[in-house]
Amino acid sequence: MKLLNLDHVAIAVEDLDAALAGYRSRYDVEPLYREIVDSQGVDEAMIPVGGSFVQLLQPLSPETPVGRFLSKHGEGLHHIAYAVASIDAALQHLRSQGAQLVDTQPRIGGRGARIAFVHPGDLGGTLIELVELKHG
Amino acid sequence: MKLLNLDHVAIAVEDLDAALAGYRSRYDVEPLYREIVDSQGVDEAMIPVGGSFVQLLQPLSPETPVGRFLSKHGEGLHHIAYAVASIDAALQHLRSQGAQLVDTQPRIGGRGARIAFVHPGDLGGTLIELVELKHG
Repeated sequence: MKLLNLDHVAIAVEDLDAALAGYRSRYDVEPLYREIVDSQGVDEAMIPVGGSFVQLLQPLSPETPVGRFLSKHGEGLHHIAYAVASIDAALQHLRSQGAQLVDTQPRIGGRGARIAFVHPGDLGGTLIELVELKHG
Repeated sequence: MKLLNLDHVAIAVEDLDAALAGYRSRYDVEPLYREIVDSQGVDEAMIPVGGSFVQLLQPLSPETPVGRFLSKHGEGLHHIAYAVASIDAALQHLRSQGAQLVDTQPRIGGRGARIAFVHPGDLGGTLIELVELKHG
């Protein structure tokens, strides 16, 4: 297990256009791209800040994980994502530790990356995403 | 206003030693340093991940902002911090925007940095810290 980077911090928002306008006016930042990720039920925008991203997530419907989060908590910090060199090795290590995983096998997330989530009950009440970015 | 970096992501925890042991065993990371910041009522550990830090915060008492957060929400993501070149310029810009600020003037945080917090009601339900790091 080797964490390469804090890839992104994800924030659940009700209205992605309004949130992007807010980030633009308050912090003078622009998204690098915007992508609908059907598998996760979100419209997401990735704003580069230094070597990381702020990811703004608007749910595609209330019956999605981020939609349910918004209903329960309102807008706010949703998860953090660490880049790893090998998500297979990372998951193998976490399984050997008895970690509480959301995904026992990798799936495909935004940017075509291989991702897996670790349950917030595992450590520090924090939903953690592991990301193995595509190369080349 | 220019965001230089995602300086850190802060996580409120009940027991800093236990959280550090968890991060060590799960993610093979170690804190760079640990510091009691009386002005914020926290014992904090900074874990480097790529060019950012994961900051673990244990309140010094229940009657602190992080102590009250834990009572209300339990452990979890508490705030994110952006490094800026000039916190005076950043606060001036935010005031001109009518942003909802926790701190209208900078104060001294961990690492002797000049910091200020922006209220979560301002944008995306997110408590945002601006950090002007000491140089040299």
